[in-house]
Amino acid sequence: MNKIILTTLFLSICNLFSLNTNAQAQNNMYRIAKIKVDVNQIEQYKSALKEQMNAAIKLEPGVLSYTVVADKKDASLITIMEVYANQEAYQSHILTPHFKKYKDTVKNMVLSLELIDTELVERVHKPNY
Amino acid sequence: MNKIILTTLFLSICNLFSLNTNAQAQNNMYRIAKIKVDVNQIEQYKSALKEQMNAAIKLEPGVLSYTVVADKKDASLITIMEVYANQEAYQSHILTPHFKKYKDTVKNMVLSLELIDTELVERVHKPNY
Repeated sequence: MNKIILTTLFLSICNLFSLNTNAQAQNNMYRIAKIKVDVNQIEQYKSALKEQMNAAIKLEPGVLSYTVVADKKDASLITIMEVYANQEAYQSHILTPHFKKYKDTVKNMVLSLELIDTELVERVHKPNY
Repeated sequence: MNKIILTTLFLSICNLFSLNTNAQAQNNMYRIAKIKVDVNQIEQYKSALKEQMNAAIKLEPGVLSYTVVADKKDASLITIMEVYANQEAYQSHILTPHFKKYKDTVKNMVLSLELIDTELVERVHKPNY
């Protein structure tokens, strides 16, 4: 009898954790940033962006991923898929020293910036992708 | 002495694997698909897309990830970030029964489709993101 109670309790706790994880995932913030960079400063821009991203992923628990790609037909067109744990994580991110340093460094490199707030429909991936 | 030789051999093999993995990653194909869906068929479209994605990630070793998001301002604007191991994996993907079924199912749901071939600049992520 004790075993049944313990098993039920264990499964309930597992379920709670699972629900919590799902609820957290539902709050994840998916943003697409489309950036047009000065063609003469693409490498400097990428360098500043990489420095910012690597600091953010290392230092901020609420920064979940950044995927940065460049258009093959025009390397000055950069798209970033940004994922934050929630809106609060993003608000906290833009106050960090590494983000402020990035914004200051690239202010004369970025010709245009479009931010598109999106909702996740589905994500499937192999391990580590 | 034997230990030194064995250690050197072991490290060389590790290095080879690492180089191979990097070379493979450099071949990864990153594509952005921008899709405008008929507003009256958004749920049917998402359902067909999810079926296709889940089959592909399960059955095809060269399909590495799909991330699908919808614009918060217009849920009929879908963006997919697709990652394949290489061009060959993509060419093989479009010949699969699940992909052909998807294309056939959605042909009257998709109003426009833009495919943007891109190159990875950088990706950083927390585990599982």
